[in-house]
Amino acid sequence: MDRVAIIGASMTQFGKREGWLRDLLVEAALDCLDDGGIEPGEIEHLYVSNMASGEFEGQTGVPNMLAHDIGAVPAYTQRVDQTSSSGGAGTYAAWQSVASGVSDLTMLVGGEKMTHRSTAEATDVIASITHPYEYKQGVTLPSFAGLTARHYLDKYDAPRESLGKVAVKNHKNGVDNPHAQFQKEVSLEEVLESPIVADPLRLYDFCPITDGSGALLMCPESVAEQYTDDYAVIAGVGGATDTHVVHEREDPTVMGGVVESGKTAYEMADMGPENIDVAELHDMFTILEFLQSEDLGFFEKGEGWKAVEEGVTDRDGDLPVNTSGGLKSKGHPLGASGVAQIYELYQQVRGEAGPRQVDAETGIACNVGGFGNCVITTILEAAR
Amino acid sequence: MDRVAIIGASMTQFGKREGWLRDLLVEAALDCLDDGGIEPGEIEHLYVSNMASGEFEGQTGVPNMLAHDIGAVPAYTQRVDQTSSSGGAGTYAAWQSVASGVSDLTMLVGGEKMTHRSTAEATDVIASITHPYEYKQGVTLPSFAGLTARHYLDKYDAPRESLGKVAVKNHKNGVDNPHAQFQKEVSLEEVLESPIVADPLRLYDFCPITDGSGALLMCPESVAEQYTDDYAVIAGVGGATDTHVVHEREDPTVMGGVVESGKTAYEMADMGPENIDVAELHDMFTILEFLQSEDLGFFEKGEGWKAVEEGVTDRDGDLPVNTSGGLKSKGHPLGASGVAQIYELYQQVRGEAGPRQVDAETGIACNVGGFGNCVITTILEAAR
Repeated sequence: MDRVAIIGASMTQFGKREGWLRDLLVEAALDCLDDGGIEPGEIEHLYVSNMASGEFEGQTGVPNMLAHDIGAVPAYTQRVDQTSSSGGAGTYAAWQSVASGVSDLTMLVGGEKMTHRSTAEATDVIASITHPYEYKQGVTLPSFAGLTARHYLDKYDAPRESLGKVAVKNHKNGVDNPHAQFQKEVSLEEVLESPIVADPLRLYDFCPITDGSGALLMCPESVAEQYTDDYAVIAGVGGATDTHVVHEREDPTVMGGVVESGKTAYEMADMGPENIDVAELHDMFTILEFLQSEDLGFFEKGEGWKAVEEGVTDRDGDLPVNTSGGLKSKGHPLGASGVAQIYELYQQVRGEAGPRQVDAETGIACNVGGFGNCVITTILEAAR
Repeated sequence: MDRVAIIGASMTQFGKREGWLRDLLVEAALDCLDDGGIEPGEIEHLYVSNMASGEFEGQTGVPNMLAHDIGAVPAYTQRVDQTSSSGGAGTYAAWQSVASGVSDLTMLVGGEKMTHRSTAEATDVIASITHPYEYKQGVTLPSFAGLTARHYLDKYDAPRESLGKVAVKNHKNGVDNPHAQFQKEVSLEEVLESPIVADPLRLYDFCPITDGSGALLMCPESVAEQYTDDYAVIAGVGGATDTHVVHEREDPTVMGGVVESGKTAYEMADMGPENIDVAELHDMFTILEFLQSEDLGFFEKGEGWKAVEEGVTDRDGDLPVNTSGGLKSKGHPLGASGVAQIYELYQQVRGEAGPRQVDAETGIACNVGGFGNCVITTILEAAR
């Protein structure tokens, strides 16, 4: 089968941005066209990953507006929403459009504009991701994270400090990412002394609220060389759900959606965890980096924390995780986050990650919606 | 190439419904599984067409909830939003999942719950589909419809009555559709004397606000016979945008998205308008039925109105249009409407449409988002 190539990518500055979602999407889209050397009229399908422009801004129909604004009409366009994993779902949708043969040039643009709303308002929108049985009792995503972290630390005899070290590592990586919301280091002491949010997790165990956008250009590998010889290939991609009622899960330290989507992606890529050189994991909360690194098969269950303690996931470790800074320091504009993960891998496997560069020909991204309620895992590799 | 088959379909009662979107989606999904003889655990991909559950109900993450509620976990799931054409976009997304080879059994469930909000509130959500340049000046979708209708009547010397006859025809068809919101005839006099909404269009030129849901099951044609020998095939499908700023269109009586998406669908199906036996068109406003019937090539531009006057689009005419009752009498629950169009064609081409049955082996559905800002056209045919 003809594989799907990525021939261009972009991301905007993440952080507190002026303007509206529309401005962010246009910025990422134009940068991406420029990166790929593509004219807007060449786009056949245009996907927009966005969770909640209606709720955050009272504006819908955003994909049509984007097609119009960048001059891509009459390209087909559609919005992809899969809550916090909308970017991964958009990657999967864009992949499908090329793999099914209906588009020879697809653009995905993911974005979210949130910071103009109060934290309470934004949290309210995000809480509605989860099941009303749970969030109406106050068990929001941070609560799940706290409960899971406590359970994990107890069950696997992990020190509280190991969670803090995820934040320290990812902030350190973010210093070298000019697009990151926080380009500054934090010390373990700062993390451990920051205000408690959901015990044992503290403020610096959480990603921030962020505005931002990112974009990707995809085409069949058979035509990629018409555009560039410096492309990457989506070697594997898969998506899977876990129970939407989180408390029904047998073992809350296992994310079934990560396990299942990983299996599908590995199988398509004909790879296993041993073939992966770098990983972008969905560290919306520090505890999630442990769970995903285990559920994708890099470490035994309950041992992900040791990898962080031992520096295995550092930039110069055996499996660098979140070289971009992760959601923790880069920021988490819902619809853009999964796209920005792929952006980082695209740079890494092509050797274009600058000061963040690690030795990588393959990379994996894991984009998590809700509390693992739906997960998309994507494997990139450098063009042969 | 292996084509994509539809092996099951359902729709709920359309109208003013109790409960929440969640209840409607579950109802349609379970009915559809029952219709196809499929267990929920067999579903590999699950798409939910829905424009605005966040805005209408404050609930997001609905696809994950549905996968959980019907027992489809760990099936991959995602929401498809393309405003009023979300159902058509969902059909296209589900088609792509099968055609790309990543799912051998995909379910699409489309739905919207709107009637619990006031007409003003619902209209406000719907207005946000269009461009802020326009809707913030009061040029909402009904305004566009009125302006376009006036222009059409003047330009093509069409009588006002011809628009009314679309409503009369579609209501007559709806009488025989047990799922329709309005199962009653209206007279031409009633239409022409109903209150003015956007001159020359009156209340009965508009579809109602509706709750409802519908579902489809798709698989590769090569495996369809494992399930049933009474399936239909998606012979062609295409989607296209037109300018999002409606007033920039050169000729407001031409819907470019209909023309372009129709071309793509005809080409994939290796058919032309002459091969189509029955059509479900997006008669959100009566004028739209004329425009689509022309832009899909059934009639010359400016002559669609004559077809209605001459009975060509009646149930016993040469090209029956909206045998289901159309959006006009069946109702228009945004995310469900495009799915319900396919539901009707699925029954028609398989000879299962009961009192609405016409002589049809092929059918076309045209699902319009915004004021033609994005359009998906789908061609069904009976299994060979």
